Amino acid sequence: MIDFLSDTVTLPTAEMRQAMFSADVGDDCYGEDPTVRELEAVSAARTGKQAAAFVTSGTLANLTALLAQCPRGHEVLLGDRSDLYNYEAGGVSVAGGVLLHPVATAEDGTLPLELLRAAIRDKSDYQCAPAAVIALENPHCLSGGRVLGLKYLSSVRALADEHGLKIHMDGARIFNAQASLGVPVARIAEHADSLQFCLSKSLGAPYGSMVCGSAALIDSVKRYRKMLGGGLRQGGIMAAAGLVALNSMVERLAEDHRRAAWLAQEIRGLPGVQLRSEKIQTNMVFFDVGGQGNQAFLQALQERGIRMGILGDGVIRAVLHYMIDDQAVRDTVAAMAAILCPATQTSTF
Amino acid sequence: MIDFLSDTVTLPTAEMRQAMFSADVGDDCYGEDPTVRELEAVSAARTGKQAAAFVTSGTLANLTALLAQCPRGHEVLLGDRSDLYNYEAGGVSVAGGVLLHPVATAEDGTLPLELLRAAIRDKSDYQCAPAAVIALENPHCLSGGRVLGLKYLSSVRALADEHGLKIHMDGARIFNAQASLGVPVARIAEHADSLQFCLSKSLGAPYGSMVCGSAALIDSVKRYRKMLGGGLRQGGIMAAAGLVALNSMVERLAEDHRRAAWLAQEIRGLPGVQLRSEKIQTNMVFFDVGGQGNQAFLQALQERGIRMGILGDGVIRAVLHYMIDDQAVRDTVAAMAAILCPATQTSTF
Amino acid sequence: MIDFLSDTVTLPTAEMRQAMFSADVGDDCYGEDPTVRELEAVSAARTGKQAAAFVTSGTLANLTALLAQCPRGHEVLLGDRSDLYNYEAGGVSVAGGVLLHPVATAEDGTLPLELLRAAIRDKSDYQCAPAAVIALENPHCLSGGRVLGLKYLSSVRALADEHGLKIHMDGARIFNAQASLGVPVARIAEHADSLQFCLSKSLGAPYGSMVCGSAALIDSVKRYRKMLGGGLRQGGIMAAAGLVALNSMVERLAEDHRRAAWLAQEIRGLPGVQLRSEKIQTNMVFFDVGGQGNQAFLQALQERGIRMGILGDGVIRAVLHYMIDDQAVRDTVAAMAAILCPATQTSTF
Amino acid sequence: MIDFLSDTVTLPTAEMRQAMFSADVGDDCYGEDPTVRELEAVSAARTGKQAAAFVTSGTLANLTALLAQCPRGHEVLLGDRSDLYNYEAGGVSVAGGVLLHPVATAEDGTLPLELLRAAIRDKSDYQCAPAAVIALENPHCLSGGRVLGLKYLSSVRALADEHGLKIHMDGARIFNAQASLGVPVARIAEHADSLQFCLSKSLGAPYGSMVCGSAALIDSVKRYRKMLGGGLRQGGIMAAAGLVALNSMVERLAEDHRRAAWLAQEIRGLPGVQLRSEKIQTNMVFFDVGGQGNQAFLQALQERGIRMGILGDGVIRAVLHYMIDDQAVRDTVAAMAAILCPATQTSTF
Repeated sequence: MIDFLSDTVTLPTAEMRQAMFSADVGDDCYGEDPTVRELEAVSAARTGKQAAAFVTSGTLANLTALLAQCPRGHEVLLGDRSDLYNYEAGGVSVAGGVLLHPVATAEDGTLPLELLRAAIRDKSDYQCAPAAVIALENPHCLSGGRVLGLKYLSSVRALADEHGLKIHMDGARIFNAQASLGVPVARIAEHADSLQFCLSKSLGAPYGSMVCGSAALIDSVKRYRKMLGGGLRQGGIMAAAGLVALNSMVERLAEDHRRAAWLAQEIRGLPGVQLRSEKIQTNMVFFDVGGQGNQAFLQALQERGIRMGILGDGVIRAVLHYMIDDQAVRDTVAAMAAILCPATQTSTF
Repeated sequence: MIDFLSDTVTLPTAEMRQAMFSADVGDDCYGEDPTVRELEAVSAARTGKQAAAFVTSGTLANLTALLAQCPRGHEVLLGDRSDLYNYEAGGVSVAGGVLLHPVATAEDGTLPLELLRAAIRDKSDYQCAPAAVIALENPHCLSGGRVLGLKYLSSVRALADEHGLKIHMDGARIFNAQASLGVPVARIAEHADSLQFCLSKSLGAPYGSMVCGSAALIDSVKRYRKMLGGGLRQGGIMAAAGLVALNSMVERLAEDHRRAAWLAQEIRGLPGVQLRSEKIQTNMVFFDVGGQGNQAFLQALQERGIRMGILGDGVIRAVLHYMIDDQAVRDTVAAMAAILCPATQTSTF
Repeated sequence: MIDFLSDTVTLPTAEMRQAMFSADVGDDCYGEDPTVRELEAVSAARTGKQAAAFVTSGTLANLTALLAQCPRGHEVLLGDRSDLYNYEAGGVSVAGGVLLHPVATAEDGTLPLELLRAAIRDKSDYQCAPAAVIALENPHCLSGGRVLGLKYLSSVRALADEHGLKIHMDGARIFNAQASLGVPVARIAEHADSLQFCLSKSLGAPYGSMVCGSAALIDSVKRYRKMLGGGLRQGGIMAAAGLVALNSMVERLAEDHRRAAWLAQEIRGLPGVQLRSEKIQTNMVFFDVGGQGNQAFLQALQERGIRMGILGDGVIRAVLHYMIDDQAVRDTVAAMAAILCPATQTSTF
Repeated sequence: MIDFLSDTVTLPTAEMRQAMFSADVGDDCYGEDPTVRELEAVSAARTGKQAAAFVTSGTLANLTALLAQCPRGHEVLLGDRSDLYNYEAGGVSVAGGVLLHPVATAEDGTLPLELLRAAIRDKSDYQCAPAAVIALENPHCLSGGRVLGLKYLSSVRALADEHGLKIHMDGARIFNAQASLGVPVARIAEHADSLQFCLSKSLGAPYGSMVCGSAALIDSVKRYRKMLGGGLRQGGIMAAAGLVALNSMVERLAEDHRRAAWLAQEIRGLPGVQLRSEKIQTNMVFFDVGGQGNQAFLQALQERGIRMGILGDGVIRAVLHYMIDDQAVRDTVAAMAAILCPATQTSTF
């Protein structure tokens, strides 16, 4: 199968398998797993932060980072189309008594400054929950994998500072942002108090995410990680795959971006195909097809051994990753053409 | 002072003072306060519900009603301009681990059905917090005190039933809706599983609100009321004022509506005055003034012994209530004219 | 009826009725109620604290004081026989994500220092919830209304300071402690960061409690009060009764204490009567009767127009208050003798 | 090093390494990981439950099982010396608004029925938080790894049924209980609504625990697992080690038990050594040494390449596991003798 469902479906690489097999491990709940320690040190260094914590998922990464920075009864300002708001089951409110305050997301994935400003409630008014954190998603998935620019990040930082707010960056695919912007991830992260990125998405590790920030913040993150059942014993098995991901899967992301842009270019002209965003900055293509509808189209693709997914608002998403090569893209374009241009094919479905 | 700040600023009437003075009371935490019992029975009967609970505030009424109907980790769909979302400090999330999911409010105070429908997340998806309750505000304050029509309510009921959701009605000023629609409040309430109304707003009691619903719901509300410190001992003192409010302050609401419409009519033509809503259905007028700005205008009013307030988005709100009579409206119009039409006045500020 | 059920069953005095009738009030949610302000100022002064907040109940007082001082995931160390642990429905855990960590209470109502010390978990260990607050109940109801001595309080203060903990004093009947210790309440309160006392218990007001502490603490308490629906509009009605309670009901508490001791002395020798505590320090007597059992005994009392209550562990509690005078005590002793010594029934007084 | 610190310090076996290396995996967040599915099916079958969920830790297992069964504001009755109460950071209260109500644990690890009964608060009283779940720990670690008998479990079941309560069993080392009782784990689990056991403790897997129960319960557990960040992608890597643990590490537990009993027997006579419990039922020995004190003794052991740990109340714990063989026990006894009988040091074995 050619699987565009998500970059989370990737299987571990042979190198990851080998690294997990031979990983040097210990009980990380006692701080004795050398591989976890190394992964945390490498992650901190890479993102330019003091410290990092290895957690099982992006959801746990966001959850612990927000709990560590947002007191009970305070608000997290975040995008109405963010993963945090839509696909993390509201854990921050449940576990933290924290309010998620959504702000309308611009087409490019940014949260307009004037909307953020308007969403900051009057903290002198007992009727209003005060804001504590602004959460940004970078790249922003539902807007088509769009990357937040450094200038925008710097302007949000200024706004946050003006109001005494923290910034959390949900950088599930932050290395795709690095590849797209052409600057080191630390340059992107410098505007955020906390950054989380996933080893299991575009980087291909089986699972795991990193929360990066100041030493004090990471200490608090680790406390919440334990409380929420995220403390691992011989976590080094997974951390070993994470180190491979960081060392050998980052450079190749440009390949995914190239293929995503190429796929978009190829299918743009197919009958009925409507790209949701013309600007392909990372490893995703969002589109609709006309006629028979998206569901039927996916079914037809599936019969040809190709899988794509449909997101909340009905759009088709195709995610590129290391298991999809040039030939797979070519095959996909051909299959789509076959489905959507039946007249030019001898056998349609 | 002529005080348009809110109808919460009203002083108890002489009849209320007398009723409180001579109220027959007991310890309501043991269910032994006859006046509280009477107020609860009268409120239930008036709203066509099985039972009612007397609580200290509209905030506590909304909070207990929602906690009683929304399990941990579930969502309340509500208006982005509702009091519950903006001015109740997020207590539902803090105390209940409940998510407030705002939906864009239409100009008339309704939450469009298609937006409600779109906001109901896929409950089969573990990533998504399932909806449990739709909360409506009727009349809807921030849209200018607009009243939700019976037909609309009925359509929301159908949507809620289709998805197994409860409806909570924040009817802080529900008797104003009754006066405006010309139907008994029970007709309005029949579409809701729970209804709260305030004795302290347009009805003039010192404080207190009623939550009305099924017997089982009210039992749960009373449990949460106790847990959240809302259990009263000789609550009958306040309940006595509440009974006076229900018995003698409801009929006169039409007067407030007439005066609100009259005030709007009179000031509409003043230089710079821009009504936010042309349709005055209850006891509020929302407007902006040009030129010097709203803040300066309020200051000038204050110097003439008139107080109005500014809400979150900068608009001026004037609320009519029993302490503002025809002469007060006339004086206010005159004062506004004096401030806004300095050329036609001998002495401006 | 002679009602020993609780001192919460008292009716407001004529002076309170009059004060409520003529109270000068305003909208306290805007800080404009002069009587509430006065009650808060008087309460702060009386307890030697910077500020005070008027809330509807002792439960809300404890809840807001603890939320203001105990972050999410931290512990409140408190007595296993305290009202807070047993009869406040766990609101602190529900609304605050706070853990209640009970410690075995000594017979005199104190929490032994060595038990408190042992209950402080290792805060460097992520597995353990760190302590934040020690909550004391003074007088301690379930131990028979026993009063915590100044020396004990001072030793708890030292322990708290050593570990960076706050002390909250649930002084629902703190003026009974004052009367018993013969020192001003401020001397008792000086060992606590926050103190709450009830106007509605031995002081006879219809309802309401005061939280006293530093200005910053009270600011936070007021924020939580609003969030939890405890904000009042014309709260001055009730505050007026509270002021009467503080001004005219405190001195007379010694009378209740005298009568409680007298009642205990009189019934101690009755057949089957077993006092739970020989030491009567405040306004309560706890006892069991033999033979027919406590429930049947209460029933027999009720038939003679006397009511007492049974607490959680089956003990009978008789609470003295301003509505029980010497004659009522005499009548009660006679009734008890008649019930418990049927053979000698003709010779009772 | 001979490491008795905990059975969590074990390294994965060669068979586990191999199984992880070659595991067939998929994205478990889409339910597509065959190895996770297999582990869940095997675990359900083994424990006689309908379904099972793979989670990262015992803490997450307990947390999700309790959240799934205990509504907001309800109580979990549990042992005051349980892991859940002492070493899981109170996550259930934080994430669930649930109260942990500790009951004094008997020496044999049971919670006496009369104490459980007394701890069930009056649910008709709004002042009291109602009980929802009884949580048992089996084997009970802090009492020395004592096993709860079937008769006791059956009596708790009857009590729970009488009061409409659920039973959760924290069976972190449930297979040690199976080995000790000589009955299949399903016989032990049949008294519980939910059972969790750890793959990472005595079974030697790197990490992971299983929650077992009805299909509906496990559905809810999986929802909470996702919300709390415990959803894994290619979780099959770890599940593969878990399957090895279940298939090849259970039978050998009797060896650990034999060695624990042997170790206890050997050290019992050493000068100063005081066993905390004479009855060694599973894989732990708890003891104190006299003289120099436990800390110094551990230091001396450490210098001889042996590690034991000290628990909360200062006792030394030695945990047997697959990496400690007969020779290691012999060496340990010799080292202890050398430390504790310095005069006879030359004559030790």
